[in-house]
Amino acid sequence: MATLLESALKETQAHLEAVLDQLLPQPQGPEARVAEAMRYATLGGGKRIRAFLTLQSGRLFGVDRRALSRTAAALECVHAYSLVHDDLPAMDDDDMRRGRPTTHKKFDEATAILAGDALLTHAFQLLAEPETHPDPHVRAELCLRLAQASGAGGMVGGQMIDMACENLTPDMATITRLQRMKTGALIVFAAEAGAIMGRASQQQRHALTFYAQDLGLAFQMVDDLLDETGSAGETGKAVGKDATRGKATFVAALGLERTRAQAEALAHQAPGHLAEFDGRADLLRALPAYVLARKG
Amino acid sequence: MATLLESALKETQAHLEAVLDQLLPQPQGPEARVAEAMRYATLGGGKRIRAFLTLQSGRLFGVDRRALSRTAAALECVHAYSLVHDDLPAMDDDDMRRGRPTTHKKFDEATAILAGDALLTHAFQLLAEPETHPDPHVRAELCLRLAQASGAGGMVGGQMIDMACENLTPDMATITRLQRMKTGALIVFAAEAGAIMGRASQQQRHALTFYAQDLGLAFQMVDDLLDETGSAGETGKAVGKDATRGKATFVAALGLERTRAQAEALAHQAPGHLAEFDGRADLLRALPAYVLARKG
Repeated sequence: MATLLESALKETQAHLEAVLDQLLPQPQGPEARVAEAMRYATLGGGKRIRAFLTLQSGRLFGVDRRALSRTAAALECVHAYSLVHDDLPAMDDDDMRRGRPTTHKKFDEATAILAGDALLTHAFQLLAEPETHPDPHVRAELCLRLAQASGAGGMVGGQMIDMACENLTPDMATITRLQRMKTGALIVFAAEAGAIMGRASQQQRHALTFYAQDLGLAFQMVDDLLDETGSAGETGKAVGKDATRGKATFVAALGLERTRAQAEALAHQAPGHLAEFDGRADLLRALPAYVLARKG
Repeated sequence: MATLLESALKETQAHLEAVLDQLLPQPQGPEARVAEAMRYATLGGGKRIRAFLTLQSGRLFGVDRRALSRTAAALECVHAYSLVHDDLPAMDDDDMRRGRPTTHKKFDEATAILAGDALLTHAFQLLAEPETHPDPHVRAELCLRLAQASGAGGMVGGQMIDMACENLTPDMATITRLQRMKTGALIVFAAEAGAIMGRASQQQRHALTFYAQDLGLAFQMVDDLLDETGSAGETGKAVGKDATRGKATFVAALGLERTRAQAEALAHQAPGHLAEFDGRADLLRALPAYVLARKG
């Protein structure tokens, strides 16, 4: 299953590259620079874990792949926007991302702020367009859930806690809240989106939510571990910066060994939530172990 | 009608203050700072022209005022977000707005970026929530049109042109494109939103669109004139900065007199588009002349 999963992830990466290339605005007119920066920030790599979750969860309910791809693209736009803004000098001040200069380094700060704003806006546009789903109930619910997952009560709120906690020593409850909001909420919505589009039952939707909560936390713990123990070559960004900045990470709170152990426990637990699904959920079942083993 | 309009605008300002206070997130938890900054940026003043347009256009079609107020609040959130990000040091670097320190001055840059992001996201949340309209078609269309008006093809694209044109001498076509995108698109959507919610005919919707296009351009021309000839006390922000920065304004391209003449022509022309509506459109008909006479 590990090899199958790897080739499925590679296929998703190539697919999203083509889908995003088609769905992002083309640079034209005197405002071309913002579209160029949107494309730079979104295209050319990324693990596409969020897109993969949407494509796979939608498959469980027989959702049209073309429609799923639009929702997956919207999620990757939001993820890319969050990275562009988090990398800004006023925030984490990062120069490298995915092995390339960050968007404000490649362009400039003003363009990076605007490109992030436009990517967030574009995500809602994609979800609201009729091509994404014939049922307007579904489109409105996708917009609503994306907003809840990515706004002040979700991703943005998590980043706020992240900034506020620098050089403090927050407790595990705060760190868990931070990560559930900052990265967890969007990962949960990614898995949920396929269920919304497939008009799944509440029970099926909850199963995917619980799965994605465990996966999201494990994913973040591995991220924290990689910042401490990984190499810049493998992760595509500077490492060791969390500790230097006094970031509120799981490693800072629990240490390397206990973080590793908790990530393993969550990765083992996650697939259990998918018991009610058939073989079509096997790639989702294999994903947590893969996330645990990742090097970058 | 001028006095009636003034009291209606004042009533809208007071009403929006209450509505936004209720609909914006409450500061709580370790992420409280982002909600505080969202409130600071959105509450406590503002002309609420966009909200007024939505409330008045919806009234033409008998739309429930409670529902209209939610859409009006969403528009004011988007407007506030655009001001917060435009005021950032990397953009226009403004210290004062509405007679108070700008959000990044009152808080800090990171918080201002995040508060802007969260306000934009919150606008989509408000529009997508069932309380805004029982028909999901309407909710999805509101989200779609807001995204089109405020993204790379609208407001953000306009701000990109604005940044790109500094110290150049763009032609009138570029300046008009800039302003139609930067301020016009959202003003047009504000007028259109009431028609969408009231399931108006295409003809009625177009009438409001044409009206708002003229109004929006006149509004921007007056803004440019005020920056050149107004006082900081009346406008609540620093004046004379457009010229210092070499901004692509109508005044820079046309001079004071021709800008004034064009604004007057547009303000005279705008009410003509509303001929098919009854007396309920009288406040909208009076608005362009009021905009022309404003001092801040």
